[in-house]
Amino acid sequence: MTALIAQRMQECLDACLRCLKACETCASACLTEPEIDMLRECIRLDRDCADVCALTAQLLMRGSELYAHAARLCAEACARCAEECEQHGRHHQHCQVCAEACRACEAACRAVAA
Amino acid sequence: MTALIAQRMQECLDACLRCLKACETCASACLTEPEIDMLRECIRLDRDCADVCALTAQLLMRGSELYAHAARLCAEACARCAEECEQHGRHHQHCQVCAEACRACEAACRAVAA
Amino acid sequence: MTALIAQRMQECLDACLRCLKACETCASACLTEPEIDMLRECIRLDRDCADVCALTAQLLMRGSELYAHAARLCAEACARCAEECEQHGRHHQHCQVCAEACRACEAACRAVAA
Amino acid sequence: MTALIAQRMQECLDACLRCLKACETCASACLTEPEIDMLRECIRLDRDCADVCALTAQLLMRGSELYAHAARLCAEACARCAEECEQHGRHHQHCQVCAEACRACEAACRAVAA
Repeated sequence: MTALIAQRMQECLDACLRCLKACETCASACLTEPEIDMLRECIRLDRDCADVCALTAQLLMRGSELYAHAARLCAEACARCAEECEQHGRHHQHCQVCAEACRACEAACRAVAA
Repeated sequence: MTALIAQRMQECLDACLRCLKACETCASACLTEPEIDMLRECIRLDRDCADVCALTAQLLMRGSELYAHAARLCAEACARCAEECEQHGRHHQHCQVCAEACRACEAACRAVAA
Repeated sequence: MTALIAQRMQECLDACLRCLKACETCASACLTEPEIDMLRECIRLDRDCADVCALTAQLLMRGSELYAHAARLCAEACARCAEECEQHGRHHQHCQVCAEACRACEAACRAVAA
Repeated sequence: MTALIAQRMQECLDACLRCLKACETCASACLTEPEIDMLRECIRLDRDCADVCALTAQLLMRGSELYAHAARLCAEACARCAEECEQHGRHHQHCQVCAEACRACEAACRAVAA
């Protein structure tokens, strides 16, 4: 493994863990918002994204040969979650934070999946 | 969702759970075999495949829109694990069982990913 | 391992997988209900219970020595989720199904944790 | 929630993620060691500990009310993994690192479980 690939894997791992935390935080916060009716998709996508980030992080930690394939799935999960969270970012700080973590993770995943 | 897609998702879910169990059983059994030295790859791939099957099953159960993307990753994990287990199937019953569960899961995943 | 313990572990594994599916189904259905405002706790507890059931099932499949400790946590998760779902069971079929799966899983977990 | 509890939960989360990474790294490294025959228990316990740490971290991130119960299971998983890794720490750097991460996580989990 080249130094560049190792560095990208490390950055991807860090981004996955940050995104996992942002998604869990956002879902829990959405579940307490008065306007929960508007946040159904957000809760749903947060959860999917969190679980996909958790698996991708674990595969990266163990040096699994599947990491690039997992990163492709993870980029997809992050893109969908980001798109939804961005629509609520003006009203909810947790959605704004989550959208940014998702976009960063999406980019890091695409870099290792390439 | 058409009836055909719903049926394929159900078959994929069942196949993922069977494969998850076969991989966990195979990994644990490999860890007790006298010839563990030959089974390193098998233990490694069993674990990856089990974790990917677990996530794919959970996404299918919740009706996540990511299921087809997850199934693509899962088919890849199953194919690699099957290829390894098939090499040990003559000597170890658990590898034979696992290889068959992986091939069935790979096929079911490709059917929903299509 | 005695035959009785092996049988209880198998029953617990089956109950965990059924409960996992019921919780995932219930959470996804709650997220589409008009009265989502009443179902916040249900969604939250469904998710925790699903994830704990998934881990407990995986530990049972691999014959982990931690299974009794995990079953203790799982019984707790199931009891809390059942208590909440039971309050909505008259109005929502998915909550009724989930409550029953949680109670069955709680009992099966207590049997192996003993 | 008091500031002290919030701080302990944060420390526990950090310790779980560090332990998760150390366990995944240790298991993967053990699978490549010439003396794998001596490391069977280590691989097995690393895997259990990693999976329990991952769940505990995720429950802490989402502020689940189950966190103290999960931390109790996690402390048990860490203690068993640490005990095994400590026996190999003189020969394998990854076991030494893992044993220390497990002991730190065990302590952090006991602090939040109390």
